[in-house]
Amino acid sequence: MRQTFDIKGGPQDGRAHLPLLRKEMAAMGLDGFYVPHEDEYQNEYLPDANERLAWVSGFTGSFGSAFVFADRAVLFADGRYTLQAADQTAPELWERQGVPDPGAFGWLAMQALDGKTIGYDPRLMSPNDVAALKAAAESAGARAVAVDDNPLDKAWTARPPQPDAQVVPHPVKFAGVEHTDKRAEIGRALAAAKVDAAVLTSPSSIAWAFNIRGGDVSCTPLPLGRAILYADGTADLFLDEGKVSPKLRKHLGNTVTLRPLGALEEGLADLSGKTVSLDPDVASAWFFDKVEAAGGKIVRQRDPVALPRACKNAAEIKGTTAAHIRDGVALTKFLHWLDTEAQSGDVTEIDATIKLESLRDEVDGLQDLSFPSISGAVEHGALPHYRVSTASDRKLDRGSLFLIDSGGQYPDGTTDVTRTVPIGEPTADMIRHYTLVLKGHIALATVRFPPGTTGTHLDVLARHALWQAGLDYQHGTGHGVGVYLGVHEGPQRIAKPWNATPLAPGMIVSNEPGYYREGQYGIRIENLQYVTPAAPIEGGEIDMLSFECLTFAPLARDLIDVKLLSKEERAYVNDYHKRVWKLLNRKLPDDVKSWLKAATARI
Amino acid sequence: MRQTFDIKGGPQDGRAHLPLLRKEMAAMGLDGFYVPHEDEYQNEYLPDANERLAWVSGFTGSFGSAFVFADRAVLFADGRYTLQAADQTAPELWERQGVPDPGAFGWLAMQALDGKTIGYDPRLMSPNDVAALKAAAESAGARAVAVDDNPLDKAWTARPPQPDAQVVPHPVKFAGVEHTDKRAEIGRALAAAKVDAAVLTSPSSIAWAFNIRGGDVSCTPLPLGRAILYADGTADLFLDEGKVSPKLRKHLGNTVTLRPLGALEEGLADLSGKTVSLDPDVASAWFFDKVEAAGGKIVRQRDPVALPRACKNAAEIKGTTAAHIRDGVALTKFLHWLDTEAQSGDVTEIDATIKLESLRDEVDGLQDLSFPSISGAVEHGALPHYRVSTASDRKLDRGSLFLIDSGGQYPDGTTDVTRTVPIGEPTADMIRHYTLVLKGHIALATVRFPPGTTGTHLDVLARHALWQAGLDYQHGTGHGVGVYLGVHEGPQRIAKPWNATPLAPGMIVSNEPGYYREGQYGIRIENLQYVTPAAPIEGGEIDMLSFECLTFAPLARDLIDVKLLSKEERAYVNDYHKRVWKLLNRKLPDDVKSWLKAATARI
Repeated sequence: MRQTFDIKGGPQDGRAHLPLLRKEMAAMGLDGFYVPHEDEYQNEYLPDANERLAWVSGFTGSFGSAFVFADRAVLFADGRYTLQAADQTAPELWERQGVPDPGAFGWLAMQALDGKTIGYDPRLMSPNDVAALKAAAESAGARAVAVDDNPLDKAWTARPPQPDAQVVPHPVKFAGVEHTDKRAEIGRALAAAKVDAAVLTSPSSIAWAFNIRGGDVSCTPLPLGRAILYADGTADLFLDEGKVSPKLRKHLGNTVTLRPLGALEEGLADLSGKTVSLDPDVASAWFFDKVEAAGGKIVRQRDPVALPRACKNAAEIKGTTAAHIRDGVALTKFLHWLDTEAQSGDVTEIDATIKLESLRDEVDGLQDLSFPSISGAVEHGALPHYRVSTASDRKLDRGSLFLIDSGGQYPDGTTDVTRTVPIGEPTADMIRHYTLVLKGHIALATVRFPPGTTGTHLDVLARHALWQAGLDYQHGTGHGVGVYLGVHEGPQRIAKPWNATPLAPGMIVSNEPGYYREGQYGIRIENLQYVTPAAPIEGGEIDMLSFECLTFAPLARDLIDVKLLSKEERAYVNDYHKRVWKLLNRKLPDDVKSWLKAATARI
Repeated sequence: MRQTFDIKGGPQDGRAHLPLLRKEMAAMGLDGFYVPHEDEYQNEYLPDANERLAWVSGFTGSFGSAFVFADRAVLFADGRYTLQAADQTAPELWERQGVPDPGAFGWLAMQALDGKTIGYDPRLMSPNDVAALKAAAESAGARAVAVDDNPLDKAWTARPPQPDAQVVPHPVKFAGVEHTDKRAEIGRALAAAKVDAAVLTSPSSIAWAFNIRGGDVSCTPLPLGRAILYADGTADLFLDEGKVSPKLRKHLGNTVTLRPLGALEEGLADLSGKTVSLDPDVASAWFFDKVEAAGGKIVRQRDPVALPRACKNAAEIKGTTAAHIRDGVALTKFLHWLDTEAQSGDVTEIDATIKLESLRDEVDGLQDLSFPSISGAVEHGALPHYRVSTASDRKLDRGSLFLIDSGGQYPDGTTDVTRTVPIGEPTADMIRHYTLVLKGHIALATVRFPPGTTGTHLDVLARHALWQAGLDYQHGTGHGVGVYLGVHEGPQRIAKPWNATPLAPGMIVSNEPGYYREGQYGIRIENLQYVTPAAPIEGGEIDMLSFECLTFAPLARDLIDVKLLSKEERAYVNDYHKRVWKLLNRKLPDDVKSWLKAATARI
């Protein structure tokens, strides 16, 4: 199994480890210490060795932070994790506070901590967060100081080793462009902006810029490392030596100097007198401190890899299209299974998760899942970020909906798809809500938009039908997606908070509106789609952009109320299903094939 | 007449005045000087005495700036004004550059000005603009310095006097709340935020906070003055003494200290040691400099009046609704005239403008127009900001469209409405384009949205139908509107650039999508509407907001292609026309009344 259903963490972890941290803090003269969930690489999925917040508190959520003092410890977690945080932390040790209100720094600012010293690890925080921490500490009468050695890391004697998966070349047939050409182009852009070097701190930028992949964290083939790109197209790549094979050396060639990760500080010191680009959204404060100390001139700008990585080239689009079709075969088999065996009402969320994973395992090239499946039956479907455990597992009852959000990592692409299906007879409300969500999904799938449009501009299209019915959903509508990289990838995003990045050809985004009825059911329909120039249209005057769909698997025909659809929306569903049938039918066993025929019949 | 059709400005102004400015600059030791269009009050419509850019260059556009050096002078104007700037400036004296690319500061940064000194008047620039100017000067090797005396003002010996219109009380029956109560509430908010005083630099904030109006600029009843509000609800109001009557003194009462405008600097100096709120978007750098010099602690935050002013109370909504209905009578008479007499094809843009103004003059309480009418026949309709002059005036040809955007200032409200009508037989394209614009207008008129939604989120609704047809318009969709105050008022706005202010009950916005076919015709449909809690809806789960329409005048029935409308859109048009008929018919002479009956018949 690629995913587990055990709950890690729990109160015993905090009981065992909090005293150890306090001892180290005392030895270092710290009155308080700040522990964020983020690690050195701002990873979404942390290697076990970097689960610092879980180690000290027992709380294993994917987002949170803590302030630890000699006499109190406070955990900050958002609304998704209120219950989990309460379950996992020892009540006699941990107070809990909400995010974003007051949030860790907002809380700190309101405390009375005259003359206290609060430590933080600059490797784990962005410069903006450090500034906010310092301001909050000042409001409280305290002082925030950077530590050279993280007291938690010192206290964590049984810390698992850092991951050491081999770093492997990513074939140019999938990448589309030689890594030397990628860096030459970025180098020209740096030179044009009078920048000597760019420090890449994000493993996914490194993966893209060197056409390499790694296996250091689950769900994303990231090589944990750092790099410095120079304006002449050469680069230093910092990797643990154990991850480097002769094959990798050959792949990287003579424009890349491989250096051990331990030489990073030395590499930054060499930037003395240079103009250096650093991205304050992805590089930690430590990098800013080191480059500044070395006498480098820092230019704060976006990671130069972010936009080229986001705008997929023809080879990447071709690859991910192929991966999506293979993945769609597995999903369609699974949807068939849901519509037959699972209709008994005796199947559980974990059963379904295992079934889908086993079907994906049969797909050519599967390397990993792109994230642990969200497998929500009945009322669990209403928790958008639900993750089933042996404790929470429940049956897919008859007369309910089942929502499953899942994806795979393939050498040629990354998938992410959500389907919602009825188990037994759906109610009129279920059908109405599914259809409203579908209307939003279709509006975002079919929109034509002028260059300069960002995801924030488009977000309302996916909500309009729900809004008119007095409904909404409390999450973003779409995230960027990588190609055999992160399933969540910026800089583009379709959501209410302002995103300033215009959607540009080649960008992949998810289209995933939803509806969640607390305690009863959840609905989400998610396809991936990429930006492409729109076909010319009669009477059109502006060169528009549009979306091309990547995900192919049937929608829940029985949940669609055709009367609520416009003529155009109905045509969309029929066209989409026609494409699903055409792309998948010959790859399916007979029983699934005949099921798909009916599942994609005209509405 | 309240509007003129003469062209002011022209090359002779720059020829006469540029040498005078250069002489003063030389005497002050300045190598360069920056001349923005904005005046001390960031007015939209400047009093003649503050038309500095027009005086020195001859360019009378409403937006622009200039750098003047000993040997060259450069004018910056945006795309709307390219032709006008060329016409109005002497080619042997003035170079012209675009905005925003490169823009004045972008241009400056690229020059070689080693060791030069560039003056600027801190009274006319925001702190952000000063920072940008300083950075640009540094890039060019120069130094930007604030001047105490503006050399242009010294050179402008024949400068008109500052306006001195009497300031009058604004009756509480229109304002809805006593000014003492308004300030007491703002004072409590200041106290809660630990702020001692807020400096109000915006005349419209002063008008609102003291329930007063003035007549210092055209189109907006602004009293040019300044104020300091204190956390205890008292205030200092700085006004030229000639504008103050005994009646005004009585209205202001004993919680307001009236001080001459000349005592402003002294008033700011009194803020020594106090925590002072200043809005960097509306207060000039001069205020920041003075408060800092006085030893005040500056808190940069939004003008505390901006949001309460934007969220109209019940009395304001009642007043502006009444004003809109009276204004709608004038507009409907005008539309009748357009559909009868003006169908000859012999009427000109100025004729039409005069006709509409004369009909508005008959309306109870008209104080002023809220802006000079945009009266665009045939190809002039395609210029969204067109202003007719005797030189540009042209006939409303048969077989064309005529667009007119106009409004009035009444003691109880401010109107702004655009209608587009056919002159003679419209083409199929005209009908199609009008209908697409109408679909966008309806989508924005009928949307229900959750609290937290901003104008940027809603903007796409007004564009979607056009986008799907390969079309768009290059301006915002909606601006905030005051009640007997500015026809353009923040902080809310419906447009593509990010606006972070959530739409809240009582906010008035315009809804004005358009379509512009260069050289042929322009279409715009504009109503004002205000935010109000949405009526509950069956199955709705969230308390939504919606819009209530303020503007009532018939749409162009002959330009609507019913086949392009959904059932709901058609119902909207019929409902709207039913309300127009009901609200207006008894106020109309018989001929107009019977015309309106047909104009509002069901489609």
